[in-house]
Amino acid sequence: MEYKFSDRTNNLKPSAIREIFKYAADPTVVSLSAGNPSPDAFPVKELEEISAELFKKNPIGLLQYSVTEGYPPLREYMKKYMAEKYNTGSDDDDIIITTGAQQIMDFSTKALVNENDVIITEAPSFIGSLNSFRAYNAKLAGVPVESDGMNTDLLEKALQENENVRFIYTIPNFQNPSGVTMSLEKRKKLYELACKYNVLVLEDNPYGDLRYQGEFIPSIKSMDTEGRVIYAGSFSKVISPGMRVAYVIAPKPIIQKLTVCKQGSDVHTNIWSQMMCYEFLTKYDFEAHLEKLRTIYRKKAKFAMDLLDKYCAPEITYDKIDGGLFIWCKLPEGTDMLGFVKQAIERKVCVVPGNAFLTDENETSDGFRINFSTPTDEQLEKGIKALGKLIKEIV
Amino acid sequence: MEYKFSDRTNNLKPSAIREIFKYAADPTVVSLSAGNPSPDAFPVKELEEISAELFKKNPIGLLQYSVTEGYPPLREYMKKYMAEKYNTGSDDDDIIITTGAQQIMDFSTKALVNENDVIITEAPSFIGSLNSFRAYNAKLAGVPVESDGMNTDLLEKALQENENVRFIYTIPNFQNPSGVTMSLEKRKKLYELACKYNVLVLEDNPYGDLRYQGEFIPSIKSMDTEGRVIYAGSFSKVISPGMRVAYVIAPKPIIQKLTVCKQGSDVHTNIWSQMMCYEFLTKYDFEAHLEKLRTIYRKKAKFAMDLLDKYCAPEITYDKIDGGLFIWCKLPEGTDMLGFVKQAIERKVCVVPGNAFLTDENETSDGFRINFSTPTDEQLEKGIKALGKLIKEIV
Repeated sequence: MEYKFSDRTNNLKPSAIREIFKYAADPTVVSLSAGNPSPDAFPVKELEEISAELFKKNPIGLLQYSVTEGYPPLREYMKKYMAEKYNTGSDDDDIIITTGAQQIMDFSTKALVNENDVIITEAPSFIGSLNSFRAYNAKLAGVPVESDGMNTDLLEKALQENENVRFIYTIPNFQNPSGVTMSLEKRKKLYELACKYNVLVLEDNPYGDLRYQGEFIPSIKSMDTEGRVIYAGSFSKVISPGMRVAYVIAPKPIIQKLTVCKQGSDVHTNIWSQMMCYEFLTKYDFEAHLEKLRTIYRKKAKFAMDLLDKYCAPEITYDKIDGGLFIWCKLPEGTDMLGFVKQAIERKVCVVPGNAFLTDENETSDGFRINFSTPTDEQLEKGIKALGKLIKEIV
Repeated sequence: MEYKFSDRTNNLKPSAIREIFKYAADPTVVSLSAGNPSPDAFPVKELEEISAELFKKNPIGLLQYSVTEGYPPLREYMKKYMAEKYNTGSDDDDIIITTGAQQIMDFSTKALVNENDVIITEAPSFIGSLNSFRAYNAKLAGVPVESDGMNTDLLEKALQENENVRFIYTIPNFQNPSGVTMSLEKRKKLYELACKYNVLVLEDNPYGDLRYQGEFIPSIKSMDTEGRVIYAGSFSKVISPGMRVAYVIAPKPIIQKLTVCKQGSDVHTNIWSQMMCYEFLTKYDFEAHLEKLRTIYRKKAKFAMDLLDKYCAPEITYDKIDGGLFIWCKLPEGTDMLGFVKQAIERKVCVVPGNAFLTDENETSDGFRINFSTPTDEQLEKGIKALGKLIKEIV
C-alpha cells in the first residue's frame, strides 16, 4: 500500500551525514567525519564503580518508573552548579533533564514553533538541530558565521525580513561545524536584538567545558534579564553520549510546556544514567576530569592543526580553534567541494561536506568539517596527509 | 514576558493523573493509582551481574554514541523472536528500538497525523497515549470498550462519521485502564474495517506477556496482510520501566520515517539499557522470568479481586481480569464518581477517576481504575476496605 505521511514530515529525509557514515563504517576508511568523544575521554573505572554501587544501594530506584522532570537530586545540583559557576539560570528559571540535548531542540520546536514559522540559525550550523527544526516544518533562515560568531548585521536583517521568527538558535562556544566562538560583544548584541524584535534565543552549549585555551566568555543566558533564553547543556561530551543525559534551563512557563512535551514523548529519561551522572558529579572530582579531557583534546587539536599546516597549507585554510571537537577547513576559491569530498572517500578518507550544515543543503559551500577527537593519531596523520595530497593534485 | 506557544501545544495541560499522584506521594496515603511493576518483579540480581559484565567486556560500547535504529543484536533478536513466537512482523516490516513505548505513540503521530486529523481510540484508553496524540493537535474519537473489547459497530460508525482518520489506536490485551481483552473475532473485524476504510492500526501491547490465565489470542499485527499495522512492544512491564526500552514493528516505509523522527528527537536510546535487555533475553531464562512475573501478578490480582468481593460488593462491580495490572471498578448508577474519588483521597486512598481516560476529560464516567501491582498486600487490604466502607456510606 501507499503510505501518506504528515505534511510536517513528508519531505524529511535521513540526514545527509548518514550517507557519509556508511563509508565511514568501512574499517579501511579513515573517518574524520564523526563527532564522538575520544575513547580515552570516558571515566570508565569511575562509572563502573558507581554503577555497581547503585545496584547494591538502590536497585529498585534504578529500575522503576521515575518522574518526567528528571532525577530530583541531579536537577537541584545542576541548577545550583550552573547558577553559581556560570551565572546561568535565575529564580525565574527552572531546569529539567532530557534524553540528550537533541530532545531540547525537538521539544522547543514542538512547543514554540508553528509550521512555517521561522527559526534563525547560524550558517553553517549543527545538522542534528536543523533536522529537529525541519521535522516540524519550520522555515530556516541562516546567518553567516564569521571568525567571532554570527554576523549580527545580517542577523538584524534576517529579523527584519522574516515574519514570525520564533527563536534564534546559536552554539556560541566552539560551534559545530565551524569551530568558531562568539565574542562577548556579539553575544550582547544578539541578546539586544532578541529583545528588540521580541524573539527567544535557544543557546546550545555542548562544548563549553572543552575550552583548551583563551578566556572564558559568559553565556547569553547569563545576560537574560527578560526571560528570553532557553539554555541547553549536555553531559554527552564530558561524561558519555551513550547515556543520553542533558539538561535545559529556561523560564518557568517554557519549562512547564517542555515537561508536558516530554511526558508525551518518553515519560522520563533513563534513570540509571541520571543517577550515574549525579554520582559522578558529586562524589568524584569533576573539575579534575574536565581538566583531563582538555589535556587530551588540546593535544589532539594541536596535532591535527600541525598536520593541516604540514600537509594541506597553503591550499586548505582554517581558523585556529580554542576548544571543541571540530575544525572547519576551507578549499581554495573555485574548487568543487563535493567533488573533493567524493574523491577523498575514494582515497579512503571521510570528511563532512559543508553544504550538509546549511539551512538549504542545495546551496554550495567551500568548506568541509573534520573531527579530531575520534580518530587515533595514526589515522589523523594518514587522513590529513591524503587530503593534502589530493588538494595539491586538484589545484 | 508573555510566552506564545505553538497552536499544537497551546492547550496542552499536565496530565490529570499527575494531580492524583501529588496525593499519592504522601506516604500516609495508600496509592492504588500507579501503573508501576511490583518491586518484586525486577530481576535485580541478573541485571546487576549483566551490568558488571558489560563494564568489564565493552565499556566504550556502553558509553559511546550508537545508531538511531537501536543496538543491532537486540533488533535482530526481537525481530526473529516476535516473528517466530507470535507471527508478529514479516519480511515487509522492520523494527527499531525506542525510548519506551510512549515514544512510539509520539513518533507515529508526528509522522502520520496532521493537525485536526482524527485518531480513533478505545474509550476509556491509556492517558499517556491520549496525551501524545493531543500534543500534535490530533482530534480524538473514542469508541466504547465492552467486556470483549471495542464495540466494532460503533468503530465502523466512527470510521464513517470522521474524515481524515489516520489510525485506530488499541491496547488489545488487558487494556489500560479497563483490564479488558479484545476477542479474536473483534480483532479480525477491526483489521477488516481498517482495510475497508483505508486506515492504519496502532497496536499497543505492553501487557501481553502478563497473561495469568485463559487462552492466548493472536496479535492484530499477525493478521496484517496489507501492511497496515504498527505494533508497539515494550520491556517496561517485563524487565524494567526505568530503563525506557521498547520496540516498534511496522512496514518498512513507516519505520524509515519513524527513524528520521527519532534521529531528530533523542538520536538513539540509552545504549546501556539496550545491551542490558539483549543480554537478559539471550543469556538468561526469559520464559522462566515471565512465568515468575505471572505467578506474582496472578496472586496479587486474585487477592485484589477477593478484597473487592469481600468489602465492595455488591455496590462496586468489576470485570474479572485474565492479565495485566489494572482492574476497572464501576460505581452504582447515579453515584458522583469525582466526589467518590475525592472523598477516598480524604480517607487516604488514591484511585484514578475514569474521566481521566476519556478523549474528553469533561465527559462523565461511572468508573475508576485501581492498580494492584505496586501496593503491598497490606496496603491493598487497607485501601480496598476503605473504598468499600465509603461506598456503603454513600449509597
